[in-house]
Amino acid sequence: MTLGPVAILGGTGQQGSGLARRLAAAGVHVIVGSRDPQRARATVDGWRPAVRVDIADNGAAAGSADTVLLAVPYTTVDALLEEIAPRMRPDAIAIDLIVPLTFAGGKMAMLEVVEGSAAEHIRAKLPASAALACAFKTIPAHLVDRVDEPLDCDEFICGDSDAARGRAAELVAHIAGLRAVDVGPLARARSIEQLTALAIAINRRHKRHDARFRIVGL
Amino acid sequence: MTLGPVAILGGTGQQGSGLARRLAAAGVHVIVGSRDPQRARATVDGWRPAVRVDIADNGAAAGSADTVLLAVPYTTVDALLEEIAPRMRPDAIAIDLIVPLTFAGGKMAMLEVVEGSAAEHIRAKLPASAALACAFKTIPAHLVDRVDEPLDCDEFICGDSDAARGRAAELVAHIAGLRAVDVGPLARARSIEQLTALAIAINRRHKRHDARFRIVGL
Repeated sequence: MTLGPVAILGGTGQQGSGLARRLAAAGVHVIVGSRDPQRARATVDGWRPAVRVDIADNGAAAGSADTVLLAVPYTTVDALLEEIAPRMRPDAIAIDLIVPLTFAGGKMAMLEVVEGSAAEHIRAKLPASAALACAFKTIPAHLVDRVDEPLDCDEFICGDSDAARGRAAELVAHIAGLRAVDVGPLARARSIEQLTALAIAINRRHKRHDARFRIVGL
Repeated sequence: MTLGPVAILGGTGQQGSGLARRLAAAGVHVIVGSRDPQRARATVDGWRPAVRVDIADNGAAAGSADTVLLAVPYTTVDALLEEIAPRMRPDAIAIDLIVPLTFAGGKMAMLEVVEGSAAEHIRAKLPASAALACAFKTIPAHLVDRVDEPLDCDEFICGDSDAARGRAAELVAHIAGLRAVDVGPLARARSIEQLTALAIAINRRHKRHDARFRIVGL
Protein backbone atom coordinates (compact mmCIF):
# COMPACT_ATOMS: atom_id res chain seq x y z
CA MET A 1 0.00 0.00 0.00
CA THR A 2 1.44 3.31 -1.07
CA LEU A 3 -0.97 5.59 0.74
CA GLY A 4 0.87 7.68 3.35
CA PRO A 5 -0.66 9.47 6.33
CA VAL A 6 -4.10 10.90 5.68
CA ALA A 7 -5.35 13.88 7.68
CA ILE A 8 -9.10 14.25 7.94
CA LEU A 9 -9.88 17.81 8.93
CA GLY A 10 -13.30 17.95 10.47
CA GLY A 11 -12.69 14.33 11.33
CA THR A 12 -15.32 14.15 14.05
CA GLY A 13 -18.20 15.23 11.83
CA GLN A 14 -20.48 12.52 10.46
CA GLN A 15 -18.73 12.17 7.13
CA GLY A 16 -15.23 12.77 8.44
CA SER A 17 -15.58 10.23 11.20
CA GLY A 18 -17.11 7.66 8.87
CA LEU A 19 -14.16 8.02 6.51
CA ALA A 20 -11.66 8.01 9.37
CA ARG A 21 -13.08 4.77 10.68
CA ARG A 22 -13.32 3.11 7.28
CA LEU A 23 -9.83 4.15 6.21
CA ALA A 24 -8.23 3.22 9.54
CA ALA A 25 -9.95 -0.15 9.40
CA ALA A 26 -8.40 -0.60 5.94
CA GLY A 27 -4.94 -0.04 7.40
CA VAL A 28 -4.46 3.63 6.51
CA HIS A 29 -2.62 5.87 8.96
CA VAL A 30 -5.34 8.40 9.78
CA ILE A 31 -4.85 11.67 11.64
CA VAL A 32 -8.13 13.13 12.80
CA GLY A 33 -7.91 16.91 12.69
CA SER A 34 -10.16 18.95 14.92
CA ARG A 35 -10.47 22.46 16.30
CA ASP A 36 -10.70 20.84 19.71
CA PRO A 37 -8.44 17.77 19.98
CA GLN A 38 -9.55 17.01 23.51
CA ARG A 39 -13.18 16.75 22.50
CA ALA A 40 -12.10 14.78 19.42
CA ARG A 41 -10.37 12.28 21.69
CA ALA A 42 -13.62 11.69 23.56
CA THR A 43 -15.47 11.26 20.26
CA VAL A 44 -12.91 8.83 18.87
CA ASP A 45 -12.91 6.81 22.09
CA GLY A 46 -16.62 6.28 21.55
CA TRP A 47 -16.23 4.75 18.11
CA ARG A 48 -17.36 1.13 17.82
CA PRO A 49 -15.67 -0.89 16.56
CA ALA A 50 -12.63 0.88 17.96
CA VAL A 51 -9.97 1.97 15.45
CA ARG A 52 -6.52 3.37 15.96
CA VAL A 53 -6.13 6.93 14.74
CA ASP A 54 -3.99 9.90 15.73
CA ILE A 55 -5.62 13.14 16.80
CA ALA A 56 -4.30 16.66 16.37
CA ASP A 57 -5.49 20.20 15.87
CA ASN A 58 -6.26 20.92 12.23
CA GLY A 59 -3.00 22.75 11.53
CA ALA A 60 -0.80 20.01 12.98
CA ALA A 61 -2.81 17.30 11.27
CA ALA A 62 -2.48 19.05 7.90
CA GLY A 63 1.26 19.43 8.45
CA SER A 64 1.74 15.71 9.14
CA ALA A 65 0.00 14.21 6.12
CA ASP A 66 0.53 13.53 2.42
CA THR A 67 -3.19 13.69 1.88
CA VAL A 68 -5.41 16.26 3.54
CA LEU A 69 -9.16 15.73 3.46
CA LEU A 70 -11.29 18.83 3.86
CA ALA A 71 -14.39 17.53 5.64
CA VAL A 72 -15.75 20.75 7.13
CA PRO A 73 -18.85 22.75 6.17
CA TYR A 74 -18.47 25.18 3.29
CA THR A 75 -19.08 28.10 5.63
CA THR A 76 -15.94 27.33 7.66
CA VAL A 77 -13.55 26.25 4.92
CA ASP A 78 -12.02 29.71 4.39
CA ALA A 79 -10.90 29.94 8.01
CA LEU A 80 -9.61 26.37 7.85
CA LEU A 81 -7.60 27.01 4.69
CA GLU A 82 -6.06 30.12 6.20
CA GLU A 83 -5.01 28.09 9.21
CA ILE A 84 -3.54 25.13 7.34
CA ALA A 85 -1.99 26.81 4.29
CA PRO A 86 1.33 27.64 6.01
CA ARG A 87 1.48 24.16 7.56
CA MET A 88 0.85 21.97 4.51
CA ARG A 89 3.71 19.97 3.05
CA PRO A 90 4.79 21.26 -0.35
CA ASP A 91 3.85 17.97 -2.00
CA ALA A 92 0.58 17.49 -0.14
CA ILE A 93 -2.59 16.68 -2.00
CA ALA A 94 -5.82 18.17 -0.71
CA ILE A 95 -9.09 16.33 -1.17
CA ASP A 96 -12.24 18.43 -1.13
CA LEU A 97 -15.43 16.75 0.12
CA ILE A 98 -17.48 19.92 0.43
CA VAL A 99 -20.82 20.74 -1.16
CA PRO A 100 -22.01 24.35 -0.79
CA LEU A 101 -25.55 23.69 0.35
CA THR A 102 -27.83 25.69 2.58
CA PHE A 103 -30.88 24.44 4.40
CA ALA A 104 -32.11 27.85 5.51
CA GLY A 105 -35.79 27.73 6.48
CA GLY A 106 -35.90 23.99 5.81
CA LYS A 107 -35.41 24.57 2.08
CA MET A 108 -32.36 23.04 0.44
CA ALA A 109 -30.49 25.14 -2.10
CA MET A 110 -27.02 25.57 -3.53
CA LEU A 111 -25.12 28.55 -2.17
CA GLU A 112 -23.87 30.97 -4.78
CA VAL A 113 -20.15 30.39 -5.22
CA VAL A 114 -18.43 33.02 -7.34
CA GLU A 115 -15.79 30.58 -8.57
CA GLY A 116 -18.48 28.14 -9.79
CA SER A 117 -18.03 25.36 -7.23
CA ALA A 118 -16.68 24.75 -3.75
CA ALA A 119 -13.72 22.99 -5.36
CA GLU A 120 -12.77 26.01 -7.46
CA HIS A 121 -13.26 28.27 -4.46
CA ILE A 122 -10.84 26.11 -2.48
CA ARG A 123 -8.39 25.99 -5.39
CA ALA A 124 -8.22 29.79 -5.31
CA LYS A 125 -7.24 29.75 -1.64
CA LEU A 126 -4.95 26.72 -1.45
CA PRO A 127 -1.18 27.14 -1.77
CA ALA A 128 -0.19 26.74 -5.43
CA SER A 129 2.12 23.88 -4.46
CA ALA A 130 -0.77 21.76 -3.22
CA ALA A 131 -2.67 19.70 -5.77
CA LEU A 132 -6.43 19.36 -5.32
CA ALA A 133 -8.99 16.73 -6.13
CA CYS A 134 -12.63 16.12 -5.18
CA ALA A 135 -14.10 12.92 -3.80
CA PHE A 136 -16.86 11.74 -1.48
CA LYS A 137 -19.11 14.65 -2.43
CA THR A 138 -22.17 12.64 -3.37
CA ILE A 139 -22.28 9.78 -0.88
CA PRO A 140 -24.66 10.53 2.03
CA ALA A 141 -22.68 11.35 5.20
CA HIS A 142 -24.82 9.21 7.48
CA LEU A 143 -24.23 6.20 5.21
CA VAL A 144 -20.48 6.75 5.33
CA ASP A 145 -20.81 6.78 9.10
CA ARG A 146 -22.54 3.37 9.17
CA VAL A 147 -19.18 1.71 8.80
CA ASP A 148 -20.45 -1.85 8.87
CA GLU A 149 -22.43 -1.35 5.65
CA PRO A 150 -20.89 -1.41 2.18
CA LEU A 151 -21.81 1.67 0.20
CA ASP A 152 -22.69 0.05 -3.11
CA CYS A 153 -22.43 3.05 -5.42
CA ASP A 154 -20.09 5.18 -7.48
CA GLU A 155 -18.11 8.12 -6.23
CA PHE A 156 -17.06 10.90 -8.56
CA ILE A 157 -13.49 12.15 -8.77
CA CYS A 158 -12.20 15.28 -10.43
CA GLY A 159 -9.04 17.25 -9.91
CA ASP A 160 -6.39 19.61 -11.14
CA SER A 161 -3.80 16.92 -11.97
CA ASP A 162 -3.46 13.22 -12.63
CA ALA A 163 -1.63 12.89 -9.33
CA ALA A 164 -4.48 14.46 -7.38
CA ARG A 165 -7.15 12.41 -9.14
CA GLY A 166 -5.07 9.29 -8.67
CA ARG A 167 -4.76 9.94 -4.94
CA ALA A 168 -8.50 10.51 -4.64
CA ALA A 169 -9.20 7.29 -6.54
CA GLU A 170 -6.80 5.44 -4.24
CA LEU A 171 -8.71 6.67 -1.20
CA VAL A 172 -12.01 5.61 -2.73
CA ALA A 173 -10.55 2.18 -3.47
CA HIS A 174 -9.96 1.71 0.28
CA ILE A 175 -13.68 1.97 1.01
CA ALA A 176 -15.76 -1.18 0.55
CA GLY A 177 -18.43 -0.96 -2.11
CA LEU A 178 -17.34 2.31 -3.67
CA ARG A 179 -16.17 2.63 -7.27
CA ALA A 180 -14.22 5.75 -8.27
CA VAL A 181 -15.42 7.37 -11.49
CA ASP A 182 -12.91 9.92 -12.80
CA VAL A 183 -14.77 12.76 -14.50
CA GLY A 184 -11.79 14.94 -15.33
CA PRO A 185 -10.71 18.49 -14.52
CA LEU A 186 -11.51 20.30 -11.30
CA ALA A 187 -14.28 22.42 -12.80
CA ARG A 188 -16.38 19.26 -13.20
CA ALA A 189 -17.01 19.73 -9.49
CA ARG A 190 -19.82 22.02 -10.65
CA SER A 191 -21.67 18.98 -11.93
CA ILE A 192 -20.70 16.77 -9.00
CA GLU A 193 -21.98 19.27 -6.44
CA GLN A 194 -25.26 19.47 -8.34
CA LEU A 195 -25.52 15.69 -8.08
CA THR A 196 -25.54 16.02 -4.33
CA ALA A 197 -28.33 18.58 -4.46
CA LEU A 198 -30.26 16.22 -6.69
CA ALA A 199 -29.79 13.27 -4.34
CA ILE A 200 -31.04 15.32 -1.41
CA ALA A 201 -34.02 16.51 -3.44
CA ILE A 202 -34.82 12.88 -4.29
CA ASN A 203 -34.55 11.90 -0.62
CA ARG A 204 -36.87 14.67 0.49
CA ARG A 205 -39.40 14.04 -2.22
CA HIS A 206 -39.52 10.29 -1.77
CA LYS A 207 -39.02 10.24 2.02
CA ARG A 208 -35.78 8.33 1.71
CA HIS A 209 -32.31 8.99 3.09
CA ASP A 210 -29.91 6.94 1.06
CA ALA A 211 -30.19 8.14 -2.55
CA ARG A 212 -26.87 7.92 -4.34
CA PHE A 213 -25.57 7.24 -7.81
CA ARG A 214 -24.45 4.39 -9.97
CA ILE A 215 -23.23 4.95 -13.51
CA VAL A 216 -24.71 2.46 -15.96
CA GLY A 217 -22.72 1.71 -19.13
CA LEU A 218 -19.25 2.08 -17.62
CA MET B 1 -54.10 4.05 -21.54
CA THR B 2 -54.85 7.68 -20.84
CA LEU B 3 -52.06 9.21 -22.87
CA GLY B 4 -53.49 11.29 -25.72
CA PRO B 5 -51.69 12.42 -28.88
CA VAL B 6 -48.01 13.22 -28.35
CA ALA B 7 -46.25 15.66 -30.66
CA ILE B 8 -42.49 15.27 -30.91
CA LEU B 9 -41.04 18.47 -32.30
CA GLY B 10 -37.66 17.76 -33.78
CA GLY B 11 -38.97 14.25 -34.23
CA THR B 12 -36.46 13.26 -36.88
CA GLY B 13 -33.39 13.99 -34.76
CA GLN B 14 -31.68 11.09 -33.06
CA GLN B 15 -33.44 11.47 -29.73
CA GLY B 16 -36.77 12.59 -31.16
CA SER B 17 -36.95 9.72 -33.60
CA GLY B 18 -35.92 7.20 -30.96
CA LEU B 19 -38.73 8.40 -28.70
CA ALA B 20 -41.20 8.53 -31.58
CA ARG B 21 -40.44 4.94 -32.49
CA ARG B 22 -40.50 3.67 -28.91
CA LEU B 23 -43.72 5.48 -28.01
CA ALA B 24 -45.48 4.51 -31.24
CA ALA B 25 -44.46 0.89 -30.70
CA ALA B 26 -46.02 1.16 -27.22
CA GLY B 27 -49.33 2.19 -28.77
CA VAL B 28 -49.09 5.96 -28.33
CA HIS B 29 -50.47 8.23 -31.05
CA VAL B 30 -47.32 10.08 -32.14
CA ILE B 31 -47.19 13.13 -34.34
CA VAL B 32 -43.69 13.79 -35.63
CA GLY B 33 -43.16 17.53 -35.95
CA SER B 34 -40.59 18.83 -38.39
CA ARG B 35 -39.64 22.02 -40.17
CA ASP B 36 -39.75 19.99 -43.36
CA PRO B 37 -42.56 17.41 -43.27
CA GLN B 38 -41.66 16.03 -46.70
CA ARG B 39 -38.14 15.20 -45.60
CA ALA B 40 -39.53 13.87 -42.33
CA ARG B 41 -41.75 11.49 -44.30
CA ALA B 42 -38.68 10.07 -46.06
CA THR B 43 -36.92 9.67 -42.72
CA VAL B 44 -39.90 7.97 -41.09
CA ASP B 45 -40.30 5.63 -44.06
CA GLY B 46 -36.75 4.46 -43.41
CA TRP B 47 -37.40 3.44 -39.80
CA ARG B 48 -37.00 -0.28 -39.10
CA PRO B 49 -39.04 -1.77 -37.63
CA ALA B 50 -41.68 0.39 -39.27
CA VAL B 51 -44.06 2.25 -36.98
CA ARG B 52 -47.18 4.21 -37.69
CA VAL B 53 -46.86 7.92 -36.88
CA ASP B 54 -48.40 11.10 -38.22
CA ILE B 55 -46.20 13.82 -39.64
CA ALA B 56 -46.80 17.56 -39.63
CA ASP B 57 -44.95 20.84 -39.51
CA ASN B 58 -44.02 21.81 -35.98
CA GLY B 59 -46.88 24.29 -35.55
CA ALA B 60 -49.57 21.90 -36.70
CA ALA B 61 -48.09 19.06 -34.65
CA ALA B 62 -48.05 21.21 -31.51
CA GLY B 63 -51.65 22.23 -32.15
CA SER B 64 -52.85 18.64 -32.42
CA ALA B 65 -51.40 17.19 -29.23
CA ASP B 66 -52.03 17.05 -25.47
CA THR B 67 -48.34 16.56 -24.90
CA VAL B 68 -45.68 18.45 -26.82
CA LEU B 69 -42.10 17.20 -26.63
CA LEU B 70 -39.42 19.78 -27.36
CA ALA B 71 -36.65 17.71 -28.92
CA VAL B 72 -34.72 20.40 -30.76
CA PRO B 73 -31.28 21.86 -29.98
CA TYR B 74 -31.15 24.64 -27.41
CA THR B 75 -30.01 27.09 -30.07
CA THR B 76 -33.26 26.72 -32.04
CA VAL B 77 -35.78 26.44 -29.24
CA ASP B 78 -36.60 30.16 -29.12
CA ALA B 79 -37.69 30.18 -32.76
CA LEU B 80 -39.65 26.98 -32.22
CA LEU B 81 -41.47 28.36 -29.17
CA GLU B 82 -42.39 31.52 -31.06
CA GLU B 83 -43.84 29.38 -33.84
CA ILE B 84 -45.83 27.01 -31.66
CA ALA B 85 -47.00 29.29 -28.84
CA PRO B 86 -50.13 30.55 -30.69
CA ARG B 87 -50.95 27.00 -31.83
CA MET B 88 -50.73 25.11 -28.54
CA ARG B 89 -53.91 23.87 -26.90
CA PRO B 90 -54.68 25.73 -23.69
CA ASP B 91 -54.39 22.53 -21.64
CA ALA B 92 -51.29 21.23 -23.39
CA ILE B 93 -48.31 20.05 -21.40
CA ALA B 94 -44.88 20.72 -22.82
CA ILE B 95 -42.01 18.34 -22.10
CA ASP B 96 -38.52 19.77 -22.33
CA LEU B 97 -35.74 17.38 -23.36
CA ILE B 98 -33.10 20.03 -23.98
CA VAL B 99 -29.64 20.37 -22.44
CA PRO B 100 -27.80 23.61 -23.20
CA LEU B 101 -24.45 22.16 -24.22
CA THR B 102 -21.85 23.42 -26.63
CA PHE B 103 -19.13 21.38 -28.27
CA ALA B 104 -17.25 24.35 -29.75
CA GLY B 105 -13.68 23.40 -30.63
CA GLY B 106 -14.31 19.81 -29.53
CA LYS B 107 -14.64 20.90 -25.90
CA MET B 108 -17.92 20.20 -24.15
CA ALA B 109 -19.31 22.90 -21.89
CA MET B 110 -22.61 24.17 -20.57
CA LEU B 111 -23.92 27.27 -22.29
CA GLU B 112 -24.64 30.17 -19.98
CA VAL B 113 -28.41 30.37 -19.53
CA VAL B 114 -29.57 33.53 -17.76
CA GLU B 115 -32.61 31.78 -16.30
CA GLY B 116 -30.44 29.03 -14.76
CA SER B 117 -31.46 26.11 -16.98
CA ALA B 118 -32.91 25.38 -20.39
CA ALA B 119 -36.14 24.42 -18.63
CA GLU B 120 -36.49 27.79 -16.91
CA HIS B 121 -35.59 29.55 -20.15
CA ILE B 122 -38.39 27.69 -21.92
CA ARG B 123 -40.80 28.38 -19.05
CA ALA B 124 -40.23 32.10 -19.55
CA LYS B 125 -41.24 31.82 -23.21
CA LEU B 126 -44.07 29.31 -23.08
CA PRO B 127 -47.70 30.48 -22.87
CA ALA B 128 -48.70 30.70 -19.20
CA SER B 129 -51.52 28.24 -19.86
CA ALA B 130 -49.12 25.47 -20.82
CA ALA B 131 -47.61 23.39 -18.01
CA LEU B 132 -44.00 22.30 -18.37
CA ALA B 133 -41.98 19.31 -17.22
CA CYS B 134 -38.55 17.91 -18.03
CA ALA B 135 -37.74 14.36 -19.02
CA PHE B 136 -35.26 12.42 -21.16
CA LYS B 137 -32.50 14.91 -20.51
CA THR B 138 -29.88 12.47 -19.31
CA ILE B 139 -30.35 9.37 -21.44
CA PRO B 140 -27.90 9.33 -24.38
CA ALA B 141 -29.71 10.13 -27.65
CA HIS B 142 -28.03 7.39 -29.65
CA LEU B 143 -29.19 4.83 -27.07
CA VAL B 144 -32.76 6.08 -27.30
CA ASP B 145 -32.45 5.61 -31.04
CA ARG B 146 -31.43 1.93 -30.69
CA VAL B 147 -35.04 1.01 -30.20
CA ASP B 148 -34.47 -2.72 -29.84
CA GLU B 149 -32.41 -2.22 -26.67
CA PRO B 150 -33.90 -1.61 -23.22
CA LEU B 151 -32.40 1.45 -21.59
CA ASP B 152 -31.83 0.08 -18.10
CA CYS B 153 -31.46 3.32 -16.15
CA ASP B 154 -33.32 6.08 -14.38
CA GLU B 155 -34.70 9.20 -15.98
CA PHE B 156 -35.19 12.38 -14.00
CA ILE B 157 -38.45 14.30 -13.99
CA CYS B 158 -39.08 17.79 -12.72
CA GLY B 159 -41.80 20.27 -13.53
CA ASP B 160 -43.94 23.21 -12.61
CA SER B 161 -46.99 21.19 -11.52
CA ASP B 162 -48.04 17.72 -10.44
CA ALA B 163 -49.93 17.38 -13.71
CA ALA B 164 -46.85 18.12 -15.77
CA ARG B 165 -44.60 15.82 -13.74
CA GLY B 166 -47.24 13.13 -13.90
CA ARG B 167 -47.46 13.39 -17.68
CA ALA B 168 -43.69 13.18 -17.99
CA ALA B 169 -43.60 10.13 -15.73
CA GLU B 170 -46.33 8.53 -17.81
CA LEU B 171 -44.25 9.02 -20.96
CA VAL B 172 -41.20 7.52 -19.27
CA ALA B 173 -43.29 4.53 -18.17
CA HIS B 174 -44.01 3.77 -21.84
CA ILE B 175 -40.31 3.22 -22.54
CA ALA B 176 -38.86 -0.21 -21.70
CA GLY B 177 -36.19 -0.19 -19.03
CA LEU B 178 -36.63 3.39 -17.88
CA ARG B 179 -37.68 4.34 -14.35
CA ALA B 180 -38.98 7.86 -13.74
CA VAL B 181 -37.46 9.59 -10.71
CA ASP B 182 -39.41 12.70 -9.73
CA VAL B 183 -37.01 15.31 -8.36
CA GLY B 184 -39.51 18.11 -7.81
CA PRO B 185 -39.88 21.67 -9.06
CA LEU B 186 -38.78 22.92 -12.45
CA ALA B 187 -35.62 24.62 -11.16
CA ARG B 188 -34.18 21.16 -10.37
CA ALA B 189 -33.51 21.09 -14.10
CA ARG B 190 -30.30 22.90 -13.19
CA SER B 191 -29.06 19.73 -11.53
CA ILE B 192 -30.46 17.43 -14.20
CA GLU B 193 -28.76 19.33 -17.01
CA GLN B 194 -25.48 19.11 -15.11
CA LEU B 195 -25.95 15.34 -14.93
CA THR B 196 -25.91 15.22 -18.69
CA ALA B 197 -22.68 17.18 -18.82
CA LEU B 198 -21.21 14.76 -16.32
CA ALA B 199 -22.29 11.71 -18.32
CA ILE B 200 -20.69 13.13 -21.44
CA ALA B 201 -17.50 13.93 -19.52
CA ILE B 202 -17.42 10.34 -18.27
CA ASN B 203 -17.92 9.02 -21.80
CA ARG B 204 -15.13 11.14 -23.19
CA ARG B 205 -12.71 10.35 -20.40
CA HIS B 206 -13.36 6.62 -20.42
CA LYS B 207 -13.90 6.25 -24.17
CA ARG B 208 -17.45 5.06 -23.67
CA HIS B 209 -20.72 6.20 -25.18
CA ASP B 210 -23.45 4.90 -22.96
CA ALA B 211 -22.89 6.44 -19.51
CA ARG B 212 -26.17 7.09 -17.76
CA PHE B 213 -27.55 7.07 -14.22
CA ARG B 214 -29.18 4.76 -11.75
CA ILE B 215 -30.23 5.95 -8.31
CA VAL B 216 -29.23 3.51 -5.57
CA GLY B 217 -31.28 3.54 -2.37
CA LEU B 218 -34.63 4.41 -3.96
